[in-house]
Amino acid sequence: MQFTAQQIAGLLQGQLEGNADTVITKLAKIEEGEPGAISFLANPLYTPYLYTTKASLVIINKDFVLTGPVSAALLRVESAENAFSTLLEMYNQVKLNKKGISKLAFISESATVGKDIYAGEFSFVGDNAWIGDNVKIYPQVYIGDNAVIGDNTTLFAGVKIYSETTIGKNCIIHSGTVLGSDGFRFNPENDNKKVAQIGNVVIEDDVEIGANCAIDRATLGSTILRKGVKFDNLIHIAHNVEIGENTYYAAAGVVAGSTKIGKNCMFSGQVGIVGHLQVADNTIITAQSGISKSITKPGGVYMGSPAFDANKYRKAYIHFRNLDGIVDRITALEKQNKVAAENKGT
Amino acid sequence: MQFTAQQIAGLLQGQLEGNADTVITKLAKIEEGEPGAISFLANPLYTPYLYTTKASLVIINKDFVLTGPVSAALLRVESAENAFSTLLEMYNQVKLNKKGISKLAFISESATVGKDIYAGEFSFVGDNAWIGDNVKIYPQVYIGDNAVIGDNTTLFAGVKIYSETTIGKNCIIHSGTVLGSDGFRFNPENDNKKVAQIGNVVIEDDVEIGANCAIDRATLGSTILRKGVKFDNLIHIAHNVEIGENTYYAAAGVVAGSTKIGKNCMFSGQVGIVGHLQVADNTIITAQSGISKSITKPGGVYMGSPAFDANKYRKAYIHFRNLDGIVDRITALEKQNKVAAENKGT
Amino acid sequence: MQFTAQQIAGLLQGQLEGNADTVITKLAKIEEGEPGAISFLANPLYTPYLYTTKASLVIINKDFVLTGPVSAALLRVESAENAFSTLLEMYNQVKLNKKGISKLAFISESATVGKDIYAGEFSFVGDNAWIGDNVKIYPQVYIGDNAVIGDNTTLFAGVKIYSETTIGKNCIIHSGTVLGSDGFRFNPENDNKKVAQIGNVVIEDDVEIGANCAIDRATLGSTILRKGVKFDNLIHIAHNVEIGENTYYAAAGVVAGSTKIGKNCMFSGQVGIVGHLQVADNTIITAQSGISKSITKPGGVYMGSPAFDANKYRKAYIHFRNLDGIVDRITALEKQNKVAAENKGT
Repeated sequence: MQFTAQQIAGLLQGQLEGNADTVITKLAKIEEGEPGAISFLANPLYTPYLYTTKASLVIINKDFVLTGPVSAALLRVESAENAFSTLLEMYNQVKLNKKGISKLAFISESATVGKDIYAGEFSFVGDNAWIGDNVKIYPQVYIGDNAVIGDNTTLFAGVKIYSETTIGKNCIIHSGTVLGSDGFRFNPENDNKKVAQIGNVVIEDDVEIGANCAIDRATLGSTILRKGVKFDNLIHIAHNVEIGENTYYAAAGVVAGSTKIGKNCMFSGQVGIVGHLQVADNTIITAQSGISKSITKPGGVYMGSPAFDANKYRKAYIHFRNLDGIVDRITALEKQNKVAAENKGT
Repeated sequence: MQFTAQQIAGLLQGQLEGNADTVITKLAKIEEGEPGAISFLANPLYTPYLYTTKASLVIINKDFVLTGPVSAALLRVESAENAFSTLLEMYNQVKLNKKGISKLAFISESATVGKDIYAGEFSFVGDNAWIGDNVKIYPQVYIGDNAVIGDNTTLFAGVKIYSETTIGKNCIIHSGTVLGSDGFRFNPENDNKKVAQIGNVVIEDDVEIGANCAIDRATLGSTILRKGVKFDNLIHIAHNVEIGENTYYAAAGVVAGSTKIGKNCMFSGQVGIVGHLQVADNTIITAQSGISKSITKPGGVYMGSPAFDANKYRKAYIHFRNLDGIVDRITALEKQNKVAAENKGT
Repeated sequence: MQFTAQQIAGLLQGQLEGNADTVITKLAKIEEGEPGAISFLANPLYTPYLYTTKASLVIINKDFVLTGPVSAALLRVESAENAFSTLLEMYNQVKLNKKGISKLAFISESATVGKDIYAGEFSFVGDNAWIGDNVKIYPQVYIGDNAVIGDNTTLFAGVKIYSETTIGKNCIIHSGTVLGSDGFRFNPENDNKKVAQIGNVVIEDDVEIGANCAIDRATLGSTILRKGVKFDNLIHIAHNVEIGENTYYAAAGVVAGSTKIGKNCMFSGQVGIVGHLQVADNTIITAQSGISKSITKPGGVYMGSPAFDANKYRKAYIHFRNLDGIVDRITALEKQNKVAAENKGT
């Protein structure tokens, strides 16, 4: 990439201060800025770097007041963070703009394939699969029979989509993630025989799933990730789970079978949730916590394993850290009472 | 699939009440039943749906007593759950009945291949590997040199089997799972140099392993999963571990090196077990617990990190939640004693 | 492999006691020794096996004093453990010595490829990628555009390397691991829109990464694993994290975004670390612990979730286990005080 400061100012509709012909060839953090780089300043903690950065152009908020000389050209915009984010995205779209079906891809004759797709080397598309427009199928991806992949969805290298899985539009699935493996269900009344899993996985529009996740198909019906769900890496979702719209789940989370999670929840890393529960909308769960009962009140914050109200947990945990001191206080009381009893006896 | 109610009654050896010619084309949950669907009722909580379902045929237990009119035809059997399970399985077997070796598969000339196998596109079978009859090797599977895959075993898309791994009969391994990677072992007496891992992984008959698990080979000897072991997704098993017959391990579990687990154990999600331990038969471990000492008594239930007897843990945890109140009681006692001491002083 | 005891003695520069012509064809644990096998004795706990083993040759420490007759030939060396380790490594190097570029591999015409590499079937090397000498690329590996793989590095079957990732020399990456997937970052000030991730992953020399790990690229700049880092399986590393030299991380660990970990740390299984922290050199963290604050003092040992000093944690946990007894003591004190107050009242 190569742009002038002037061109970038036009692109981001910002107000330029400094040399309009400055040439920009890369993006960098303000503390790592080099000549030719464009950076941004949004977090006030990084303000000192503005006066020392070697970047050639820095995006700042419109109303930022300088308190010293700056060597970089400046570009003032409504929101420096959003403007830089837009730049990153444009850069990424150019980089990821793969097209064409490789001769080394295998696409079943019975599959339906949309316009302008990318199908990389050694990718596989099964019988009666349906692939929308502008779908990107990276090398070594597997798409099973009857699967559906919506328009503009990207499947990175090595994603495995079992048969009957349905993915919406504008989704991103990262490498190594598996969708549609069998649920973990055995029948204790029938010698623990495997219960066949003939449901599927449904991923709605605008969902992003990180690397090496595993999302099981339903026994019957569907395991569902609703519109806008965002998953980090290494997350396990069991059969018949449903995750509500715009819920965010950080890495290494686990949800057991048939649990229904609400909308707009935020779960930190390594959070586990047992099966057959309901979790209300806007629930927040702190890292490593375990949910063992349904949460019916929306908007709560939970901590611990098993988890309860996070403020109460933090208070209890302060006492836990001090249990040695607490026991000393009890021992002191016991001594006092013993002395008092003895004195009374005398 | 398309069957009449009469045909299904014959298949499941049940007693039909209603129209024998009813046409069945799909399977559904009773609460999601549609015309043409067959459902079942086993859990009493779902009984109300029997009277409202739109399914065309419902399987019920032989001795179920109706308390109102039902629009669906009914099929009475010994166990509705088992009968439906049988149906699911038959459906699944038809769906998964892949055959034939793709021209786009690579099979080493020195490999031995049984009858009626499936080897999908871009799958790889290494030198001197031995593949039994009816084995299903989905696309993009890797089977290293000298590996052995028993009859009727299924390896879903993208499974990676390192060299020397041995898998028994009737096993199912889900996508993304890795068997035979190097154990995590370094020699602290030799500058933390890697200890070469030249053992293997042995999976006995009737084992199922979920998606994206990682099971390391032994340093010397074998890491072993005994007959009938069932693993959920994202489980890590270190070098030289042994898992006893019919033990069930839910998602995201971790077992460190050289630990030996007994038979018929049940471990919930995210359970961790440290290295060089013994865990007795029939042990149950609750979610997110951590086992730090050997368990010698069979049949115990453990909770916590580090874990101890689950009933004791639950009792202690009730007090933990109330530590603030407990400290208040101590503070009150201290005040009483102070007042008493002062009074006495007077 | 087939060697005489004499040849092995020469190889390991040891002193042989017994038949120099003994033929050795395999390696085994001392307790599982068979005729033709070579074993070793380092751990004193295994000493009794020396007098019963069926192995043909046993490596022992130079100064080991026999207390009974031994049927095996003996090889005395400076360190039995190190000598055996050397043998394992030699055996492994022969086994893993794959060479040649398969006709079924895809290597972009714009990629640069070093001498004596192995590129297995269905492996993919993208545009402008740079592959050093003696690199081993197993089947179904994906190496994205502009990636760099240093000399003597091994990528096992199915590893996925996103574009721009840089890997040093002498690294080992196990199957299923993903390097360079997008960081999990969304902009709350902009409707939670995805923040494009245009940084990369940098793996320095002598790093080993286990199976099915997921290491995200940086938003800007690099996510870095320094020289000599060793990772077990199923580890998640978020965007912009840095792991210091020679740090060891056991299975299923999680590090959130932008955290910087020091050198020579040792983290046990399932350890989680929240984002934007600093962790000092030589820090030890016990299994399942969660680090929620920066650790500034080097060499500490931490336990719990949230974690604090491990000795203090263990002390507090002993009291936690006994909370029922502690509450009984408080109740007894309350009764005493009530009786005392009543007596006083009388």
